[in-house]
Amino acid sequence: MDRSLTPTRLAEKAVTDRDRLDALLDSALVAHVGLVVEDGPLVVPTGFARDGDRLLLHGSTGSRWLRALAAGTYACVTVTELTGLVVARSGFESSMHYRSACLFGTFEPLAGDDASRALELFTERVLPGRAAEVRPSTPKELAATLVVALGIGQWSLKVSAGWPDDPAADVAGDAWAGVIPIRSVLEQPIPAPDVRAGIDIPDSVRRLLAGRDVGSSD
Amino acid sequence: MDRSLTPTRLAEKAVTDRDRLDALLDSALVAHVGLVVEDGPLVVPTGFARDGDRLLLHGSTGSRWLRALAAGTYACVTVTELTGLVVARSGFESSMHYRSACLFGTFEPLAGDDASRALELFTERVLPGRAAEVRPSTPKELAATLVVALGIGQWSLKVSAGWPDDPAADVAGDAWAGVIPIRSVLEQPIPAPDVRAGIDIPDSVRRLLAGRDVGSSD
Repeated sequence: MDRSLTPTRLAEKAVTDRDRLDALLDSALVAHVGLVVEDGPLVVPTGFARDGDRLLLHGSTGSRWLRALAAGTYACVTVTELTGLVVARSGFESSMHYRSACLFGTFEPLAGDDASRALELFTERVLPGRAAEVRPSTPKELAATLVVALGIGQWSLKVSAGWPDDPAADVAGDAWAGVIPIRSVLEQPIPAPDVRAGIDIPDSVRRLLAGRDVGSSD
Repeated sequence: MDRSLTPTRLAEKAVTDRDRLDALLDSALVAHVGLVVEDGPLVVPTGFARDGDRLLLHGSTGSRWLRALAAGTYACVTVTELTGLVVARSGFESSMHYRSACLFGTFEPLAGDDASRALELFTERVLPGRAAEVRPSTPKELAATLVVALGIGQWSLKVSAGWPDDPAADVAGDAWAGVIPIRSVLEQPIPAPDVRAGIDIPDSVRRLLAGRDVGSSD
């Protein structure tokens, strides 16, 4: 069993280990980026990558929210993995297992080699080995892409991994309690309709399917 | 194969069908709530439930962000399901399949019967049939819980479900392209250590495991 699926006695706790933060950031595939635009708060889901002490985002240069980040708008980036359902002996004590991090600060736009290296990182982070299987980004593609970086400095991490915390009177009753782990799995790849006969699934995809559940680290 | 996993020709599209929104809201288990607090934007992951035309959240009366919502702070609630990896013939065209909704507006606190009914809904939404297996919430538990509701009126839904959109020159090359579906699955339940011998896994949990992947609707 994955260690993260083994409940502990502590229902929810703040974790200050940077390693645990990095494990979550390197495992989860989607971040929710919160910023304030003229209409109020906006929360945008996006892929991301950790590059050492930086959190990288990328997208089209036409993206309004990404341009706002590049211009220095303060942001809160939340990364969450749901890891289980906590079935307690009452509705009140029932909850979920999760790992969730909030990172705060302002992003800076990347340029030149730093930006192209970041784009390769985005490819490798989702599908290790893929960058070597495909052509490099073209200057036109690079020009159409905005990459922004947030220094990982101000952050918090909460992990909920405990058993149901039922009061003694409920434990003495007849209701069951426990945890149902949740896992994200990759299914068999579906080739695009325009893949020509004889072009087989690449090594990167084979390795990913052989070796990794989504969100299985930590 | 689940219909949502069948790629279409459209890479990403805005969907205006309320049914599609409801399907996502009834399938996903976590929402990311964005609001502006004194320090700036804050994005909080939380469970939620749809009740007809309302989106419900709940938590401790001591929760600062929930109290801010109850007091009328404007919010953006984003609900996202990652459904696949899009492996294109270049890093630039590689992306992800997802469904994501943003709901905007101000919440109102619920009281009395409306609040107790909402708490039952939270239980039933995650684990149908569970409310009838456990005791009702006590007045003390109700008093410790804040439930807030957002009218579902101002929202947007984006669905990315297309094949890789590679340019002709890349399609003519030797690189593979396709989609790797991602699915959330429930694993076998783990009883809490204080479950007494003879107390078996309840029907609600059995049915959930037999019938449902997480996020399999639509």
